[in-house]
Amino acid sequence: MGSLWHGMTMSQHNLMQNPMLKAGIIAIGKRNMAQTAPDTPLIPLAEAKRFISECLQAVGAPKKHADAMGDLLVAADRRGHMSHGMNRLEMFVNDIRSGNCDPKAVPKILKETVATAWVDGQNGLGVVIGDFCMGTAIKKAKEVGIGIAAAKGSNHYGISSRYNFQAVKEGLLGMNFTNTSPFLAPTRSKKAFFGTNPIALAAPGKEGDKFVLDVSTTAVSYGKIEIARRKGIPIPEGWAQDKDGRTTTDTNIAMAPTSCLMPLGGSETNSGYKGYGLAFIVEIFAGILSGATYGPNIKRWLSTERVADLGQCFIAINPKCFAPGFEDRLSDLMNAIRKSEPADPAKPVVVPGDIEKQQAIAVDKAGGVRYIANQMETCKRLSEQLKVKPLRGQP
Amino acid sequence: MGSLWHGMTMSQHNLMQNPMLKAGIIAIGKRNMAQTAPDTPLIPLAEAKRFISECLQAVGAPKKHADAMGDLLVAADRRGHMSHGMNRLEMFVNDIRSGNCDPKAVPKILKETVATAWVDGQNGLGVVIGDFCMGTAIKKAKEVGIGIAAAKGSNHYGISSRYNFQAVKEGLLGMNFTNTSPFLAPTRSKKAFFGTNPIALAAPGKEGDKFVLDVSTTAVSYGKIEIARRKGIPIPEGWAQDKDGRTTTDTNIAMAPTSCLMPLGGSETNSGYKGYGLAFIVEIFAGILSGATYGPNIKRWLSTERVADLGQCFIAINPKCFAPGFEDRLSDLMNAIRKSEPADPAKPVVVPGDIEKQQAIAVDKAGGVRYIANQMETCKRLSEQLKVKPLRGQP
Repeated sequence: MGSLWHGMTMSQHNLMQNPMLKAGIIAIGKRNMAQTAPDTPLIPLAEAKRFISECLQAVGAPKKHADAMGDLLVAADRRGHMSHGMNRLEMFVNDIRSGNCDPKAVPKILKETVATAWVDGQNGLGVVIGDFCMGTAIKKAKEVGIGIAAAKGSNHYGISSRYNFQAVKEGLLGMNFTNTSPFLAPTRSKKAFFGTNPIALAAPGKEGDKFVLDVSTTAVSYGKIEIARRKGIPIPEGWAQDKDGRTTTDTNIAMAPTSCLMPLGGSETNSGYKGYGLAFIVEIFAGILSGATYGPNIKRWLSTERVADLGQCFIAINPKCFAPGFEDRLSDLMNAIRKSEPADPAKPVVVPGDIEKQQAIAVDKAGGVRYIANQMETCKRLSEQLKVKPLRGQP
Repeated sequence: MGSLWHGMTMSQHNLMQNPMLKAGIIAIGKRNMAQTAPDTPLIPLAEAKRFISECLQAVGAPKKHADAMGDLLVAADRRGHMSHGMNRLEMFVNDIRSGNCDPKAVPKILKETVATAWVDGQNGLGVVIGDFCMGTAIKKAKEVGIGIAAAKGSNHYGISSRYNFQAVKEGLLGMNFTNTSPFLAPTRSKKAFFGTNPIALAAPGKEGDKFVLDVSTTAVSYGKIEIARRKGIPIPEGWAQDKDGRTTTDTNIAMAPTSCLMPLGGSETNSGYKGYGLAFIVEIFAGILSGATYGPNIKRWLSTERVADLGQCFIAINPKCFAPGFEDRLSDLMNAIRKSEPADPAKPVVVPGDIEKQQAIAVDKAGGVRYIANQMETCKRLSEQLKVKPLRGQP
C-alpha cells in the first residue's frame, strides 16, 4: 500500500530505529503495521487509547484531556500516520514534565463575533485547543454559514484531519492551519523561516464519502531523506538545501542541523516559490492572525527552552448556504477521478484521503495495530516511569 | 527583473509571436515592456484603459463594466502579468461577440447570511462578478469579521490580486479561488481534471506594505515549456506528461493537445500529489460550493462551444477580530525574510508581491507600458473592426 498523502511509498520498518525519528523529529508517513511488525503484539485500539490516556493522567492531565489525546494519537496510527500517533506520546509527556505545557489548561475566547473567535489556548494540550476551536467554528458555521477560530498559546495538535472530521460529521467543510518549528527556507534564502506548515481540508461527499487533504508545504518530510540515506542513494534536487542555500543531493548534508528543507516544488525553476508562498499563507492564518509566536521565532522542534506558543486557525463552512447538492457534486468529481485510467495499472488514481481510509479498514479488520519493537520499548519505559499498567496486546 | 510569483524568469519577447499565446492559451509571466519592446510606442495607462473600455463598449458592454475591465487588464500589465492584461482583450471581445458572455449582466445574490452569499454571476463579465462578490464579502467581514461569497455563472476574471487588493484597502485579508479549463492531470491519471486553479491571498502590512500571493497549482505555466521549446532544450521531469501519463522532457510532446500539465511538485516521488490536492481544494471552493460547472466538465480554453459557467469564491477576513497588531507582525516577518542572506547575492530574497510592486513602480516611472509589436497589431485590428479610436502612445 502506498501512502500518497503523507509522502511515503514504502515500508519503513528499520527507519523507526532512528533516534531523530524516535524523538519525533522525522515525520514518517503511513505504513501497514500489521504487515511490517509481525513480531510485536497486536494492540487493540482501545488498549492503545487506555495506555496513552493513563500516561498523560500520570503526569497531571485531567481524564477528559488525556482521553482526547488517546483518541487523537490512536486515530493517527489507525489511519497509517504512525509518526503522529503513539510515536508522539513521549514528546507530549516530556512537554508536560518539563513544564512547557499545562495539561489542565482550558482555552478561553478573548474576542468574538457571530462568525469569528480569537482564542487563548493558555498553553494547554493542542488537542484540547483544537477541539475547542473547531467546536466553536462549527457552532458559528451552523448559525451564520461560516465560522473561524484562531488560537495563540497552543501546542502541537497531532493530525489535522481530526478537527476537520468534526466539521464533516456535521455536514460542513473543515479546514485548519498550524505553524510549527522552523525547517523550511524561503526560496533564495539560506535560513529556515517556516515549519512544515500544513494545509488541511476535509469535505463531505455522499454516503459517508469524504475528501481529506492534509499536506505539508515542504517538498518532502525528513523521513524521505532518511530513507534515501539508509539506502545510500542520493536524493533528487529540490528536497533539501545545504547551509549555503544550495540544493543538495547528499543525504548527510541534507540532514545536517544547518541545512533546510525546501518548499513544495523545490527550486525556483521548478516553482518552489509557490510552496514557500503557501507556507507563508499558513503562517498568516496560524501565527500572524492569532498573535502567537511566528516564523523563525518559534522554538526549535523538541527543545525544552521555552513554551511553544504555536498558532492555529480553524474554519468551518456550511455548504447548505451555497448551491444545493454539494455532496453529490463532490462525490461525482471524486468518483470520476477514481475511475480515470491510471498511467500505471498497478497504481490506481486516488482522491486525497482514500489511502488512509483503506489503511483504517485494514487496521479494523486486523483488530488493532502492531507497533514496531522500538516503540514497544518506549511504551514499556513510560509504563515503568509513570507507574502505568503496561501496554498489552495479543500475539 | 525576475518574476518569482508568476513563473517566468527571463524576457520573452519572441514568445509573444506564438499563436497559442496570442490566443491567450499560454500564460506568460511578467516582463519589463519598457526594456523589451523599445520599438513600439509608450502607451500611458489611461490610454490603454480608454482603448480597452471603448472596445468592450463597442460590443455592448455598459461603460461601467467596460471601465472595470480596462482597470483589470491594465493593472495586470502594470504589475508585469502581461498574459493577463491587454493580451486578453481580444478573448473577452470574442467571448461577447460569440454570445458566450453577456457584458450587460449584473450578478445577483441567490441566498445569504450575515457572513455568506451565494451568487449567480448570470454569465456576466468576470470582473463585474468578482468586484461584486469581493465587495459583498468585504461588507460582511466589516460587520461580522469574515465574509465569503461564492459565484456560479462566471467568466474569466483576470488577475486574482485585483479583488484581494480591494480587501487590503479596507484593512482586511482577501482571498479568492477560481476554477478554469482542464489542463492538469491528477497524480497517476492520464486525464486533465483541473485547470491551473490558482490560490491567491493578499494581506495588509504596515504603511501600505502588502503580502500578495497568486500562484497556480500546476507545476509551471505552458509559457515555461514554450520557452524551452524555442531554445531547443529539454524541460525537467515533473512539468508535463504525455498522453500515457508519463512525465516527458520533450517540449513538443509536452505541448501536444493530448498531454497534460503536472501539479505543483511534479511526480508522485516529488510530492506532486500535494499540488493535485491543492488544485482539488480550489475546485471545491470555486466550482463545487457555488454549483458552477466543475473539473473536467468545464469547456476547453478559448472554445466557443458553450458558456464557461466558471465558479469563483471570495473571502474577506477582518484581522481586528483577532489579535491586535496584525499589520505590525506581518511586516516584521516580511522584512526579516527580505533581509535574510540570499544563497546568491544577485538574487535577493523577496516576499510574494515584491517583484510585481517593483514592476509597477518601473512602469509608473516610465509613464506607461510598451506592448510588443504583435499586441499592437492586434489592437490595431480591433480598433478597425470595432470602429474604436486607435491606441495612441508616445515614441
